[in-house]
Amino acid sequence: MNSKQIVLASRPKGTPTSEDFRIENVELPELKEDDLLLQGMYYSVDPYMRGRMNDAKSYVAPFKVGQPIEGGVVAKVVESKSVDFKTGDIVMGALPWQQQIVAPAKGVKKIDASIAPASYYLGILGMPGLTAYFGLMDITKPKAGETVVVSGAAGAVGVVVGQIAKIQGCRVIGIAGTDDKINLLKETFGFDEGINYKTTADIKQAIAQLCPNGVDVYFDNVGGAISDAVISNINFHARIALCGQIALYNSTEVPMGPRLQPMLLTRSVLMQGFIVSNYQSRFPEGIQQLAQWITAGKLKFTETILQGFEQLPAALIGLFKGVNTGKMVVEA
Amino acid sequence: MNSKQIVLASRPKGTPTSEDFRIENVELPELKEDDLLLQGMYYSVDPYMRGRMNDAKSYVAPFKVGQPIEGGVVAKVVESKSVDFKTGDIVMGALPWQQQIVAPAKGVKKIDASIAPASYYLGILGMPGLTAYFGLMDITKPKAGETVVVSGAAGAVGVVVGQIAKIQGCRVIGIAGTDDKINLLKETFGFDEGINYKTTADIKQAIAQLCPNGVDVYFDNVGGAISDAVISNINFHARIALCGQIALYNSTEVPMGPRLQPMLLTRSVLMQGFIVSNYQSRFPEGIQQLAQWITAGKLKFTETILQGFEQLPAALIGLFKGVNTGKMVVEA
Repeated sequence: MNSKQIVLASRPKGTPTSEDFRIENVELPELKEDDLLLQGMYYSVDPYMRGRMNDAKSYVAPFKVGQPIEGGVVAKVVESKSVDFKTGDIVMGALPWQQQIVAPAKGVKKIDASIAPASYYLGILGMPGLTAYFGLMDITKPKAGETVVVSGAAGAVGVVVGQIAKIQGCRVIGIAGTDDKINLLKETFGFDEGINYKTTADIKQAIAQLCPNGVDVYFDNVGGAISDAVISNINFHARIALCGQIALYNSTEVPMGPRLQPMLLTRSVLMQGFIVSNYQSRFPEGIQQLAQWITAGKLKFTETILQGFEQLPAALIGLFKGVNTGKMVVEA
Repeated sequence: MNSKQIVLASRPKGTPTSEDFRIENVELPELKEDDLLLQGMYYSVDPYMRGRMNDAKSYVAPFKVGQPIEGGVVAKVVESKSVDFKTGDIVMGALPWQQQIVAPAKGVKKIDASIAPASYYLGILGMPGLTAYFGLMDITKPKAGETVVVSGAAGAVGVVVGQIAKIQGCRVIGIAGTDDKINLLKETFGFDEGINYKTTADIKQAIAQLCPNGVDVYFDNVGGAISDAVISNINFHARIALCGQIALYNSTEVPMGPRLQPMLLTRSVLMQGFIVSNYQSRFPEGIQQLAQWITAGKLKFTETILQGFEQLPAALIGLFKGVNTGKMVVEA
């Protein structure tokens, strides 16, 4: 039996292009004891994947050239050699970008698509939701009345960060790249204010105006000049969670910028980089809290779903142009 | 009655020069109820004073042009209108750079010169010692077997940081600017290794060699290119305490450097700026622990003492050339 798969054709220099990917046919192996045959339904497309396309030491191993890209996938069980799964079960796991996948049962977990759409397990109930929850609550510890700024605010993590900060009683300002996104943040997700960084000449000044009491918490998904502008408005004893640096992921040289340490020192600021897997042992706590807020109507979510397995490379490239609002997903 | 005082003549552009200071005579006021007449003995000279010479928002108010410089001073009581002090008591406090000072009794506290030399209350039992203790123990939380790098290692804070890290069972590497300082760090203060940044062509490479397991804790007193070199060797889950940035204090433009956030993010690194007064409520704990280590012979200290009140400007200017080893003090 054959399946289509998408492999890394070459390591990108700078922003990935379609030439860095290749669609191939792969022969699927026979199912062994405890294996599952899966049909991919939803494929997660995330900024961190750019890092794995480089051959560099990081928190996850690089993708291999000529091998399939791998990421979060929601799939349906087509055939099961495991007593724990039956045909028709919906599962998720870290799986290759293939239409059909043979995987050991221990590599996936069942999800309950009656609580939330199945794709949400790649988003608000998955890695992005948990990233928002632990990064905001554990690192920045926002207090009622404080001012929270989120960059990449209309992304999968950003929309959750802003809503959780509102639940904590904070004033929340989101930074994003289109007026439509800003409207969505304010009207759907309850952000107090938004800044369109593409049409704002002086972001530093805009933040100063919208944050008259300064910035107590900065949840950084983007890095670069936007972060410089936020940090120049940072308060004494502020906390900065470093979650993403998408503005820099395609840099081919070491990016330069103003040195932050004098500001962090004189204002006693904490800056903490993190990845969600640091909190693996606490995932059940996070999922439970997120699900409770969703059920209570306090937490909403949005996705950009591209249709068709072969759209996966375009979806990943599109992340760096900001074509998505909320979580970027490809539906096979 | 008159006293000499040293005032800020002008705000320095870049590195301070002797023209930025002026010696004046000042008429002392009559002692009021609860006032003391003090004779200055030891004057503290510290890197943070450079920041107070600028007219910029920071954690302490700027010095005023035409007014005396102010800092930590150990003094002898010459005349007392307070029931709490008698002639001959040794006190310390934040006081002006004057030979004789009239000050309210509530602004100073008595010190016990039988435990340690009186000048130590400006150093290891004063602000620098407490800065080392709280910055290292509270922010970076070193664990036995970890590797700790200290920049400005031969300064008043650095020598204490390195010794406390050794007490915690860490491998300790100090960075300083002369071979004599490196020898002192290793022979007197028990550092495992030292790097003379002035004679080392590739500091990044030197750190990689001396820290084969990477850098778990970086206690940063200097900033700039030295810190870039250390941080390029930083471990996953490392902690960086930002204590000083002396390399940048005389900058007249915003200093630029490689952006740190991608490294801090992918390696889940904590960076925390702090000033010792954040820990004011815990000073008694710190002083007690430092005194205990001194008494047990585990903690040593060194000072550079310049003789003569009029040496104060030269002592402050000299800090930025690294002329001191350990705490810089002027004895009147």
